[in-house]
Amino acid sequence: MLTIYGMATSGNCYKVQLLLAQLGRAYRWVEINSAAGETRTPEFLARNPNGKVPLLELEPGKYLAESNAILCFLAEGSALLPTDSWQRAQVLQWLFFEQYSHEPYVAVARFICRWLPPDHARRADLPRLQARGHEALALMERQLAKTPFLTGQQYTVADIALYAYTHAAGDGGIELSAYPHLQDWLQRVAAQPGHVPMAQ
Amino acid sequence: MLTIYGMATSGNCYKVQLLLAQLGRAYRWVEINSAAGETRTPEFLARNPNGKVPLLELEPGKYLAESNAILCFLAEGSALLPTDSWQRAQVLQWLFFEQYSHEPYVAVARFICRWLPPDHARRADLPRLQARGHEALALMERQLAKTPFLTGQQYTVADIALYAYTHAAGDGGIELSAYPHLQDWLQRVAAQPGHVPMAQ
Repeated sequence: MLTIYGMATSGNCYKVQLLLAQLGRAYRWVEINSAAGETRTPEFLARNPNGKVPLLELEPGKYLAESNAILCFLAEGSALLPTDSWQRAQVLQWLFFEQYSHEPYVAVARFICRWLPPDHARRADLPRLQARGHEALALMERQLAKTPFLTGQQYTVADIALYAYTHAAGDGGIELSAYPHLQDWLQRVAAQPGHVPMAQ
Repeated sequence: MLTIYGMATSGNCYKVQLLLAQLGRAYRWVEINSAAGETRTPEFLARNPNGKVPLLELEPGKYLAESNAILCFLAEGSALLPTDSWQRAQVLQWLFFEQYSHEPYVAVARFICRWLPPDHARRADLPRLQARGHEALALMERQLAKTPFLTGQQYTVADIALYAYTHAAGDGGIELSAYPHLQDWLQRVAAQPGHVPMAQ
């Protein structure tokens, strides 16, 4: 059976939970509290030298890191990862966008607001992070004004990856009111068969 | 014919040049000077709303952004992208690692050192960027002590993607002397058939 090492309140880990729920696939979940240093223990670093969750253990000793690589691996052969090469390329484009231009702002703003003390020095970063987060959301809005899902007509792992932190952007002080098509898309994603919410 | 919009001194753009050279594939190159604002013109933003190079134009009106998505799309069907699903997942893991844990430090340190004036405020970020860059290189060193290429025995687009900024890390004040296996790997990559150097 698959094992996922993850932290339930992390959007990157939720992506994998959501996909596995929609694939109807059984798995074992091992909760890892990265805030308490559990991704930095010698045992965990032996599994993932990059010290991050989520981490997939396919079988003992066989590990895969990076949330979006895990999504692609698990979705292979399902309708959530297109077989057409151009469509698949669009999925990858959005997955790399998510990790480079979205997550470092939307997820980090959420982390600072929810988990750091009110007087923490990193709060000074919030205006910059929120501004860059809004740029990412505006780009999604522009696409979602044209197509129901990010890569077109089909719900894919690109939607799962971007849903994870987008639907929780308000936690980081990034309001979604200026993005009506994005809000419709959030509802469309949440209405997909087998959808599960993120842990609070 | 393929068109690539790129800036020749950008490592992200060099990845695509190197892959196309090794595939022996003809293409048209359109030089875009992002330092001069050419990725922010209305014409360019109509092609890529995210305002970044490289950008692949497959045919008029059909665009693909994100360097590592472009690598996967172009390498499909070649030996540079494995067909085995676990091997392919390892390639994606390294590509996402590159964009999240390597490029934002190694490439950004290089950008600051090479292109910003000596008294620029962003130089204050260099120690942090260099430290995080070293963490990324140490992780590569650990893998390359075990296998000749990042995902194992086979040279793949993961090696192309990570070669681009790693071999130029010194430009950002990140020295490679502590990483002997990584240095051997740089030579191994540079010795692959069809290798071309990055523009200076």
